[in-house]
Amino acid sequence: MSLIVQKFGGTSVADFDRLQNVAKIVVETKKAGNDVVVVVSAQGDTTDLLEKKAAQINSNPSKREMDVLLSAGEQISMALLAMAIEKLGFPCISLTGWQAGFRTNTNHCCARIEKIASSRLEQELALNKIIIVAGFQGIDKFNNITTLGRGGSDTSAVALAAALHADLCQIYTDVDGIYTADPHLVDNAFKLNEISFDEMLELASLGARVLHNRSIEMAKRYNIKLEVLSSFKKHKGTQLKEKINMERMLIRGVTRDDDTARVDLIGVPLDIDFLHRVFSLLGNNNINIDLMGQANVLSSRNIVSFTVASKQLDLAKKIMQENKAHLQIEEIRVLSSVSKVSIVGAGMQANPVVAAKFFEALASEKIEVHLIATSEIKISVLVDRNKSARAVKSIHEKFFG
Amino acid sequence: MSLIVQKFGGTSVADFDRLQNVAKIVVETKKAGNDVVVVVSAQGDTTDLLEKKAAQINSNPSKREMDVLLSAGEQISMALLAMAIEKLGFPCISLTGWQAGFRTNTNHCCARIEKIASSRLEQELALNKIIIVAGFQGIDKFNNITTLGRGGSDTSAVALAAALHADLCQIYTDVDGIYTADPHLVDNAFKLNEISFDEMLELASLGARVLHNRSIEMAKRYNIKLEVLSSFKKHKGTQLKEKINMERMLIRGVTRDDDTARVDLIGVPLDIDFLHRVFSLLGNNNINIDLMGQANVLSSRNIVSFTVASKQLDLAKKIMQENKAHLQIEEIRVLSSVSKVSIVGAGMQANPVVAAKFFEALASEKIEVHLIATSEIKISVLVDRNKSARAVKSIHEKFFG
Repeated sequence: MSLIVQKFGGTSVADFDRLQNVAKIVVETKKAGNDVVVVVSAQGDTTDLLEKKAAQINSNPSKREMDVLLSAGEQISMALLAMAIEKLGFPCISLTGWQAGFRTNTNHCCARIEKIASSRLEQELALNKIIIVAGFQGIDKFNNITTLGRGGSDTSAVALAAALHADLCQIYTDVDGIYTADPHLVDNAFKLNEISFDEMLELASLGARVLHNRSIEMAKRYNIKLEVLSSFKKHKGTQLKEKINMERMLIRGVTRDDDTARVDLIGVPLDIDFLHRVFSLLGNNNINIDLMGQANVLSSRNIVSFTVASKQLDLAKKIMQENKAHLQIEEIRVLSSVSKVSIVGAGMQANPVVAAKFFEALASEKIEVHLIATSEIKISVLVDRNKSARAVKSIHEKFFG
Repeated sequence: MSLIVQKFGGTSVADFDRLQNVAKIVVETKKAGNDVVVVVSAQGDTTDLLEKKAAQINSNPSKREMDVLLSAGEQISMALLAMAIEKLGFPCISLTGWQAGFRTNTNHCCARIEKIASSRLEQELALNKIIIVAGFQGIDKFNNITTLGRGGSDTSAVALAAALHADLCQIYTDVDGIYTADPHLVDNAFKLNEISFDEMLELASLGARVLHNRSIEMAKRYNIKLEVLSSFKKHKGTQLKEKINMERMLIRGVTRDDDTARVDLIGVPLDIDFLHRVFSLLGNNNINIDLMGQANVLSSRNIVSFTVASKQLDLAKKIMQENKAHLQIEEIRVLSSVSKVSIVGAGMQANPVVAAKFFEALASEKIEVHLIATSEIKISVLVDRNKSARAVKSIHEKFFG
């Protein structure tokens, strides 16, 4: 008998029919002789609706009360799913974050799980019950409700799988696995049977929004067998593992991230202290820097460029403007309509032809590159946003065509 | 400095404007130098909506999961109210039933409060915070979420007032106090300044749905100063106390309850064993008997009559039919369109003129009486439902006109 953790996202439990569908998947897993622990998100747009209600009342509510408010969403969906499973005649029990033993730090709205006190879970499993746990939530040491922030339910599922030594953690979502590129964009994109944690980490950072980084990192750390699959189709999904069979594939996928903007600091002192001060300032304001580069092309003035998420552009610009004189920056320019295009694959580590093919694909479409960043298993470039789709198609054709 | 517990029902927190209004009432109470603990119900129709969702999924969900589901309603309203109070610049904190220390028995959907472990409440009060507590909910000894059933939030408020030795417990609702009769029905009905717990208990049982019996009983037991008032109007409400000044009023109010039905068992053995068996059967099926009577008017056959809440009529009839032969009942008749009309007042104890006036008022309107029940401080009669309004008006006119 195996213990399987199954996580269902908001779209998978959005309405009556979908809840019933999820109940069937869970019950089939149980019938096959497994112990099952289910993690659910709030239904469909519940979180958005609750956030809207809060915004109407207070544009700047305390994070503690936001956590109290939002965590009610999973409490509703877990009870409804429990009722759907009861209807199918299987004993089950729903548990909130605190009932399931999720202890977190006190960092409201983006708390980290510190431990899972799993005695209640073990007790209910021993009673042969299907357990449904509210994702995304826990309590801190003062018994205040906390939430885990974006991607929190994935993290809840992986943490549960680790705490209970589960044999498998399945992340059910609205896509049926990890693709070589966005299938809406690239016609012949295909689903990967497997991918390594490191590759998935890069893909997730680069715009493939199927799994959140935190959950992948945790799965890697505890070596959890992870699977991404669809709650709507009965296909096999994509398996995530530490080491995978390379199958002669150079790369795993091509991604783009349109949610990015570039800031150029022009005419700056080119010393390491300058960079340190700039990035400290941004870091202290919780602005994540993504790509960065240095050059001195414009009439011999030094340029430092970096990219940020689009929604952080205004803040980044404001902070740079306020510190312009102090940091000795001559000019600040922003470019809001750029995209990041990337390839990811452990296969590129030992294969110099990958980079060549990548840039050849871009060159054949005459797509100019603004910034380049590489790691051992990825290459990212910044391109004009209106060319990002063409870039992805051309690169995908080059590697998988 | 006083400690005041304020309870706001679902209509008082139904939307944005009303939440803001409640926040103002709370903050004014705080500004006046009081400690304030607020109890809230779920917003407006939240509970109905959640019940509807549940019914769609499972017509007979477990009570445990219903409690999980419904308790999310108060969690949402308490967080929103906390945000509205934060907006006004006052430190506050919301606490769910379990966080506030509400320990109940394990009777899901109608649990009884066993104790309030008030250390967290005292701690937050010591920090000078306004506390908002989710009404209607608690946890049992296994850490399962329970709810208190109908009128539960009133009971939560009174229990908190008792546990914290509050100086006053205010029940804010959509009416501004207890009236001598339903003001929608009787034009010159007027608000009572005060009423005794016993009188209020009778009124509540007899159809005045402002406060639930359990909360009144608890207030009486712990001698909590209770006040019923409106969250929409700035009027003085009605005070509930153990002993009140009689002010030369014979009675306190006239009520009617249209939610009632009569069952006649005709041709029955007239012995105490028969009554015992009938009422045991009904009791074991959770059917509450209200008025009852015995007579032998129809061609010398013995009749036993009783009333039940309308929604329990079908079940009561079914049980009687199934046991008809066994109990030696010749015939069963039901009368579904009846109403209970009552007067309540401690003043009637020493005043025989009250009953005379009551029946005089009915006789003057030629309203026939089916059953009569009296206690020390009330008289109830069963009349045809289409005459109940006329009965109330006539009686009110007789006593208060």
